[in-house]
Amino acid sequence: MNLAMIEAAAARMAGHVRRTPLLNAPLLDAAAGRRIFVKAECLQVTGSFKARGGWSAVSALSAEARSRGVIAYSSGNHAQGVAHAAAAHGAPCVILMPSDAPQVKIANTRAYGAEVVLYDRATQDRDAIGARLAAERGLTLIKPFDDPQVIAGQGTVGLELADQAAEAGIAKAPVLVCCGGGGLSAGIALALDARAPGLIVRTAEPAGFDDMARSLASGVRQRNAASTGSICDAILTPSPGDLTFPILQRLAGPGTVVTDDQALRAMALAFTHLRVVLEPGGAAALAAALFADDLPDTVIAVATGGNVDPATFATALERFA
Amino acid sequence: MNLAMIEAAAARMAGHVRRTPLLNAPLLDAAAGRRIFVKAECLQVTGSFKARGGWSAVSALSAEARSRGVIAYSSGNHAQGVAHAAAAHGAPCVILMPSDAPQVKIANTRAYGAEVVLYDRATQDRDAIGARLAAERGLTLIKPFDDPQVIAGQGTVGLELADQAAEAGIAKAPVLVCCGGGGLSAGIALALDARAPGLIVRTAEPAGFDDMARSLASGVRQRNAASTGSICDAILTPSPGDLTFPILQRLAGPGTVVTDDQALRAMALAFTHLRVVLEPGGAAALAAALFADDLPDTVIAVATGGNVDPATFATALERFA
Repeated sequence: MNLAMIEAAAARMAGHVRRTPLLNAPLLDAAAGRRIFVKAECLQVTGSFKARGGWSAVSALSAEARSRGVIAYSSGNHAQGVAHAAAAHGAPCVILMPSDAPQVKIANTRAYGAEVVLYDRATQDRDAIGARLAAERGLTLIKPFDDPQVIAGQGTVGLELADQAAEAGIAKAPVLVCCGGGGLSAGIALALDARAPGLIVRTAEPAGFDDMARSLASGVRQRNAASTGSICDAILTPSPGDLTFPILQRLAGPGTVVTDDQALRAMALAFTHLRVVLEPGGAAALAAALFADDLPDTVIAVATGGNVDPATFATALERFA
Repeated sequence: MNLAMIEAAAARMAGHVRRTPLLNAPLLDAAAGRRIFVKAECLQVTGSFKARGGWSAVSALSAEARSRGVIAYSSGNHAQGVAHAAAAHGAPCVILMPSDAPQVKIANTRAYGAEVVLYDRATQDRDAIGARLAAERGLTLIKPFDDPQVIAGQGTVGLELADQAAEAGIAKAPVLVCCGGGGLSAGIALALDARAPGLIVRTAEPAGFDDMARSLASGVRQRNAASTGSICDAILTPSPGDLTFPILQRLAGPGTVVTDDQALRAMALAFTHLRVVLEPGGAAALAAALFADDLPDTVIAVATGGNVDPATFATALERFA
């Protein structure tokens, strides 16, 4: 994994994946007591940064592999990212999704033309099911985070951030990133290390699912005790990746942890002051930027996704807007 | 009014006003049955395009006039735009707002540092009150639309659209614009006439408040029968402007009209597919893009603002998402 792979991914996705804006608002800063800049990946094609990794991975395949097709497993955002990229490349696409994923994510994944196969998150092993389907049909498995081309694709967020932070006059700041398996965090960390070394990634995870924070603190990969139980469905992965953890161990600061209520409050503040729609897991980094107590005056948060059921969003508004 | 004034306004606001993205989504296109590109001015500083006109007008004042201060009357978005620009220029600012404006708009206008004076939309004449306050305190009145520098500022949306449409390969399309007094529509029309003449402005207004559509159809300025009664509070102006109407008469296509329910449906679709927050008046153009029956395969809609009370937004989600 190096900067050249991220730059190559950026070149392959030009014109297909959006350069998302870096948003801020005086009234958000006033509410937070610090300056917060938000990289709005919820405005990305398919509604999350996963469109980047999906495009990077599918576009890196041989024509022959593409014609056989791809398979991915995902709570929803990686699913949509891969499905979108596969459709654009004319590649058949099978998506393995947990049966409790938000309906909007399942519906959208199907709408992008993918074949959706549901599994039970609590009792079935998605890796095993995915490997079997891949073998049966000759599909290439596109992992959600522990894949070099996926990490390279997500790292393009870091290339953009380096430029946008410079334009905003920010040379030194923590970059809070919503973290599941760490693909986005690792990709951004690699890009920033090369392009804007004063910007340091800090992962943001839901309380009870802080495997990355505990792994970074202990130096050894830790697992979460549970696999469900937070509204931040997009980032409930069991443990850091083989590829992502060493990168973050080398380049990231301490991990941060947020509660579900803090994620909902972040969604409400993003609604009021930035006018963007965030899903709970996509709001974890903004929640950390708002509520963590060891942050400097200026921080950057990557708002990773906005694919949320209307009822969940309405709850955030009712309780906190 | 000419292109040079719009270009000068763009130069004055560089670094202070955001270049908003042109968003689209395959699933929105599928829902609409046509390609829709949305210029997301809800992501503008202060949550609406009014930050442009406000900045343009305040920055064009003499230092002496700025030190005396400015006054504006507005249902909320022009208020915030002017208040934001005045604060950044160190100019005192009085804002005259209808007492039934959304609470979030009143609160935000105060948070930008402006003095807010409330009036009754049904029984009091805001122009008369504004003129009296301006005379008493030596304030410069910044009108919401019928002011050359305000029109020039709003016209910068058109400069960006000309570039963004070219990047997207769109040479010919209607550009639907939410329309109150016509300042934004006129500014965009002037910019596009010079830079992208295949893009033709068509105004979008709420049913019952379609003074511009009727004026364009008849060739004579028409007034609305009522001053309240649509949820599209941002665009309930009584009649086209002295400056804006002749520009639109020369350059715009026929006006479009949308119902309140269509605006709410557009808000819900923007939530689901674009992950942006629109207010009802800011969604009128997208509603026209979705539901008008005389449109070609590719259209552009300017989503003008996203300052909406949570309860109104929740209603849109509950009924239509």
